[in-house]
Amino acid sequence: MNNSVGIVETKYLHIDEPLTLDSGKVLSEYDIAYETYGELNSDKSNALLVLHALTGDAHAAGKHHPTDKKVGWWDDMIGPNKAFDTNKYFIISSNMLGGCSGTTGPSSINPETGKEYGLKFPVITVGDAVKVQKKLIDFLGVKKLMVAGGSMGGMQALEWSTTHSDMVEACIIIASTSKLSTQAIAFNAVGRNAILSDPNFNDGNYYHCEKQPERGLSIARMVGHITYLCEEAMQNKFARRFQDKDKPDFDFNIDFEVESYLEHQGKIFVNRFDANSYLYITKAVDYYDTAQGYGTLEKAFANSHAKFLIISFTSDWLFPTYQSKEIVNALIKAHKDVSFCEIQSPCGHDAFLLEFETQTKIIKSFLNKVNHI
Amino acid sequence: MNNSVGIVETKYLHIDEPLTLDSGKVLSEYDIAYETYGELNSDKSNALLVLHALTGDAHAAGKHHPTDKKVGWWDDMIGPNKAFDTNKYFIISSNMLGGCSGTTGPSSINPETGKEYGLKFPVITVGDAVKVQKKLIDFLGVKKLMVAGGSMGGMQALEWSTTHSDMVEACIIIASTSKLSTQAIAFNAVGRNAILSDPNFNDGNYYHCEKQPERGLSIARMVGHITYLCEEAMQNKFARRFQDKDKPDFDFNIDFEVESYLEHQGKIFVNRFDANSYLYITKAVDYYDTAQGYGTLEKAFANSHAKFLIISFTSDWLFPTYQSKEIVNALIKAHKDVSFCEIQSPCGHDAFLLEFETQTKIIKSFLNKVNHI
Repeated sequence: MNNSVGIVETKYLHIDEPLTLDSGKVLSEYDIAYETYGELNSDKSNALLVLHALTGDAHAAGKHHPTDKKVGWWDDMIGPNKAFDTNKYFIISSNMLGGCSGTTGPSSINPETGKEYGLKFPVITVGDAVKVQKKLIDFLGVKKLMVAGGSMGGMQALEWSTTHSDMVEACIIIASTSKLSTQAIAFNAVGRNAILSDPNFNDGNYYHCEKQPERGLSIARMVGHITYLCEEAMQNKFARRFQDKDKPDFDFNIDFEVESYLEHQGKIFVNRFDANSYLYITKAVDYYDTAQGYGTLEKAFANSHAKFLIISFTSDWLFPTYQSKEIVNALIKAHKDVSFCEIQSPCGHDAFLLEFETQTKIIKSFLNKVNHI
Repeated sequence: MNNSVGIVETKYLHIDEPLTLDSGKVLSEYDIAYETYGELNSDKSNALLVLHALTGDAHAAGKHHPTDKKVGWWDDMIGPNKAFDTNKYFIISSNMLGGCSGTTGPSSINPETGKEYGLKFPVITVGDAVKVQKKLIDFLGVKKLMVAGGSMGGMQALEWSTTHSDMVEACIIIASTSKLSTQAIAFNAVGRNAILSDPNFNDGNYYHCEKQPERGLSIARMVGHITYLCEEAMQNKFARRFQDKDKPDFDFNIDFEVESYLEHQGKIFVNRFDANSYLYITKAVDYYDTAQGYGTLEKAFANSHAKFLIISFTSDWLFPTYQSKEIVNALIKAHKDVSFCEIQSPCGHDAFLLEFETQTKIIKSFLNKVNHI
C-alpha cells in the first residue's frame, strides 16, 4: 500500500501589501513558503492547516526529489489513510514568519536596503505568524478550516481558534500549552544568550562572514534537545555508556554517548537553521499567551465554535500535561466541545513526532466525528 | 542567643608528597584549604566532615571579617545548637581538589613550570578528592569521623563511607545520588561545551589574558541554575512577569524577570569561580559511580559500619528521590542501619541549602542517635 504523498513541491506566495505587526512595526511585503497535500474539494470544506514546531518548515510530508533520503517532518502523520488523510483532506503547511525556509525572516532580503534584515527584522509574535498564514488561506480560497499542530504548532492552532474563531471548525493541539512555563522561558533565554554572545554573531550581520555563530546556535540546540527528550528517554537511549570505549579518557573530549549525541545534534542543526531565526522564533514563543487580551483563557475561547482535541504525553516535561489540562478546563468552562487524551509515552516532548500510531487512532476518530464521516 | 560560629579563618595544609590519582597521573604536591568550627574532644570522637557541592568552598560557616556581608555556604546548618552543633561536634570543611578556593586546582601554580596548570592539571575524580581530604583528616589526628554533604558533597560522603569504611561512623547524604542520571551528565556537557568553545578560553591558558572565558562560564552557570531550581520554584519566584515593565520591548534585551535572574547569576559567578575548575569538577561528578569497582551498590557498602541518613526533596529533579531510594535499598540489602526522609519542598535541588529547619530536626535526631546523646 502506497501511503506516501509522493513527490511534492514547495510553493511561494508573495504578498505585496504591508502587514502591521503586534509590535506596531510594519512589514512592507513578504513571502510565504507552503506545501499542500491532497485536493481541496468543491465546496472547500476539507482544508486542514498543519503548523510546525520551533525549527520546522513547510515541508511536512513526502519528498522533494525521488532521491531524497528524508521525508517531511510529519510524514508519519500525513498521507493516504494516515492521521491527516490526504484522501479526505486538503492539507496545507507553511513555514512560519521569522523562519529560514522560504517564508520571510531575518535572513531574507530587506527591500529597503537590498541586504539581509538581520536584527533589523521586526520582532514577531505567534499572532503575527497567524496573520501571515491567514493571507495564504485566503489566497487558497479557503473559508473554513481545521488546524493542527504540535508544540509551537499547537500555540499557532490555539491562536487560529481564538483570533479566527469564525473560520476554525476543528483544532488539534498536541504537546502544547497556552503559555510557556517560567522554566521553558529560561531554557530559551539560555539558548538566545549563547547565540547573542557568540563573537561571530556580529549583531546579526553574519550572512556574508567567513565565520558563522555556529557555536552559539549549537549550544542553544543542545539545551533544546535535553528538553525535547526526558530523563527516562535519555536513560533508555544512552544510560551512562561511554562512546566507543569501556572507560573514561580522563580528558575533556567526549566521554559519554549522550555527549556525542548532543554534539552531533548541535552540528547538524547549524547546517539547516539560521541563528537569527532561532532568536526571533523563541522570542515569539516566550511572548505567546492565549489569554492575553481576553482576560482569561476561558474568555479567549468564548467565540469559538470549533471542536477541540487536546493531546499530551506523560513524559513531556517541557510542555507538561497540566498545561494541556489548563486548556481543557478553560474549554469546558466555556462550554466548548473538547476531547482530551494523555498518551503514555517514554519519549518526552518529542513524542508528538514519534508516537504516531496512538496519535493516528485518536486523530482519525476525532476528525471523523468533526466531519460526520 | 548567639548561634553563629563567629569569625573564622581559612587554614592551609601543604602536602609535600606525591598523590597518585585514579587516572594514573601523579600530583607531586598540593595544598588543602580548610576551616574548622567547634573543638575536637579529648578522645577525638566528635569530628564531622562537611563536604561542599559543585561550586562551594571551605568557608562553610561564620564570617572571615566582622564586616563580611555573607556568611559561609551552610551557616544555617553549622553553629551552636544548629543541625551540625558546634557545641558538640568538631566540624571540618575543606575545598575540593580541582577547586579554585585554596585547594590545589587548575588555577594553582604547577611547580614544574612555575605557571598555572590550566588544562595541564590532571583530570580528577571524586575518589581523588577524598584521598586529599583523608590527608587533612590524618593531619588533624582524627581516626573516626562523621561525614555529611549535599549534592556533590553527598557523593563525597558516599565515597568516604565506602573507601574508608573503617573510619566513618555516620554518613549523611542529602539531595544526592550514587551516580548522575544521563540527563544530569547532558546538562554538565552543555556547560563544559559553552566554556570550551568560548574563544577567550584559549585552551585553558587565560589567567593572564585581558579577556576571560566569562561568557562560556556564565552560560554554564545559567544552565546550572535552571537545574538547581524546579519548574514550581521558578513559577513561584518569577512567573511570567516582565522585568521592570508591564509589556515586552520587542527586542532581544531582557524581557522577563527570569531572564534577568539568570543573567545576574551568570555575572556574579564569573567573579568567584574559575572556568577550568568548572570543567574539572563537573567531569569528576560525571564519572562518579559509587558501585564502580564493587559490582553493585550493595557490595560497595558491604564493609561499612556507619549509620546512614539519606535525605531527598520532592521537587529535586536534578538528583531525584528515586536516586536516594536506590542508595537506601542497597543499604537495606546490605543490612546496614539507614534512615531515609523525603522532605516536601518546592525549592528544587537547592532545597538542601534552603530548607534548613526540617533538615535540622532530622539531622539533630540522627546525630543524637549515632552519638548516644
